[in-house]
Amino acid sequence: MTARFDLCGIGNAIVDVVAPTEDRFLSHHDMRKGGMALVDAAAADAIYAAMPPGQESSGGSVANSCAVAALLGSRVAYLGKVADDQLGAVFRHDIAAVGVHFPTPSLAADQAGAAPTARCLILVTPDGQRTMNTFLGACVTFGPQDLDHAVIAASAVTYLEGYLFDPPAAQAAFHAAADIAHKAGRQVALSLSDAFCVDRHRDGFRAFVRDHVDILFANEAEICALYELGSFDDAVEAARRDVAVAALTRSEAGSVIVRAQQTVAVAAEPTAVVDTTGAGDAYAAGFLHGLTAGRSLAACGRLGSIAAAEVISHFGARPAADLKALVRAVEG
Amino acid sequence: MTARFDLCGIGNAIVDVVAPTEDRFLSHHDMRKGGMALVDAAAADAIYAAMPPGQESSGGSVANSCAVAALLGSRVAYLGKVADDQLGAVFRHDIAAVGVHFPTPSLAADQAGAAPTARCLILVTPDGQRTMNTFLGACVTFGPQDLDHAVIAASAVTYLEGYLFDPPAAQAAFHAAADIAHKAGRQVALSLSDAFCVDRHRDGFRAFVRDHVDILFANEAEICALYELGSFDDAVEAARRDVAVAALTRSEAGSVIVRAQQTVAVAAEPTAVVDTTGAGDAYAAGFLHGLTAGRSLAACGRLGSIAAAEVISHFGARPAADLKALVRAVEG
Repeated sequence: MTARFDLCGIGNAIVDVVAPTEDRFLSHHDMRKGGMALVDAAAADAIYAAMPPGQESSGGSVANSCAVAALLGSRVAYLGKVADDQLGAVFRHDIAAVGVHFPTPSLAADQAGAAPTARCLILVTPDGQRTMNTFLGACVTFGPQDLDHAVIAASAVTYLEGYLFDPPAAQAAFHAAADIAHKAGRQVALSLSDAFCVDRHRDGFRAFVRDHVDILFANEAEICALYELGSFDDAVEAARRDVAVAALTRSEAGSVIVRAQQTVAVAAEPTAVVDTTGAGDAYAAGFLHGLTAGRSLAACGRLGSIAAAEVISHFGARPAADLKALVRAVEG
Repeated sequence: MTARFDLCGIGNAIVDVVAPTEDRFLSHHDMRKGGMALVDAAAADAIYAAMPPGQESSGGSVANSCAVAALLGSRVAYLGKVADDQLGAVFRHDIAAVGVHFPTPSLAADQAGAAPTARCLILVTPDGQRTMNTFLGACVTFGPQDLDHAVIAASAVTYLEGYLFDPPAAQAAFHAAADIAHKAGRQVALSLSDAFCVDRHRDGFRAFVRDHVDILFANEAEICALYELGSFDDAVEAARRDVAVAALTRSEAGSVIVRAQQTVAVAAEPTAVVDTTGAGDAYAAGFLHGLTAGRSLAACGRLGSIAAAEVISHFGARPAADLKALVRAVEG
């Protein structure tokens, strides 16, 4: 059956609150620079009270990827849980406005586990690095009941967010989604999301990658954490054995893509780094946009690099420029 | 008595939703480019549904000025009405985070006239101009009962937003605030806000300016609309007769400041225009920061130009850079 969607993303539906800070803000609040920490409502309130004025925009790792892929021209669906509140309305507006199909109902205030829409407090230091503090809110209730079977079965690739290992009900949804996709003859992609998240759930991640993942995205720290290897090259080989395609990113050193015995190195696009939030998300989007269009691995990596470069050249995790025009300009 | 605050701003407390659009979006939705239109909840929902993904940040004309003045080092208070909801919490956080005292209680969901926090849907066209659609929400309930008499009496300048002529109860608050300030021997400043707003309330504005305003801010279109004059030079002379100080801005042509027989022309600071949202607000903030510090009119105008240039060099109405450092660099 022809796929109705190129991509179905499943992830934590989050609104970002982005503010610039100095490094000392991170140390004062015991934050690990560059990482994502889960915080409860009280801690989120305390961090928010202490941080500078912010800008709110829709985020969530795989939701960002879905937005970027849609802006590149892919047909995209997204599954994730927001609450029936103002930030939930912002998330729903923004993902619909880029043409992503988002069928998951909002969590109502009178439902079990009622909580506000998730938010991620993102502190951007002068070096462009982002340090994230996520209050999962309504995302905690996302479970198998939220899977839209028809949408997953009709999507060429179902793309899962590693962060979904954190909310308790989401891991079951994770496995169920992979089963639905594979039974429909589709592919399953996974982003490892964050090295600390991999540390929290290493055994679960390793088994899931080996048994259910066709396309794996990770950065250097994440892939080394997954396999507990100190060498990137060794981790690349471990990934090569586990999955059909692995796209492994190394910031300004570009990315390495492996498929069976094939290895492709792709350069990063030169750009001025303002805020790295969403760089990995944009890379995965560009890559999957190329892959589902039947492009070569090198072209897929290039599309990932172009999308990532656009996103890190300004504040915020979603594109500010016309990505299709950008790709036309670069690819010629 | 020594003033406890340099500035007490009173205005519509609004969260901005900023998105880039093409000119055809404006014509399709019958919007007047560069202006501010009041819209009801249903129209706000319809425009929001049609517009691209946005970035949310705290706004409101005089609230922007208050934030900028505080970042320049002024002691600032702000009075305005948000609701007890997520966007209200965003507004409250952002203004407190720059050190502005904000004593006005939030409008609760069970209070008379209950409405959500106001929002302004701002469409930025490729030329950097912003076209605004404001849903006033909770601001409609702002009235004399929301005036903090002690704060106004303790502020060197009370700065009123012309847009407050729109919500029905605010005009009474407007007059009462001017009386409190003058009885305490303080000054009253006013921004005309918007030419269309002046058109809606011309007689009220003219009487208020003549009888109650010491320091007047307006751009070329606004001052010409106030006096129904086609010539900027004629409007400057009319303002000279009505108020002690008038600071009149002309976009990239800089500003003209008049006080009695004195006339000072100030150049705009050169910058690349990305988004003009908040340019006038930032100019007024820089000007009032200088004025309350006893600076010359030329220095006040220069501070206004520096603050405005920073704000129009990026998306959003509030500064992204360290304004104090910027002023030190420019003033030497």
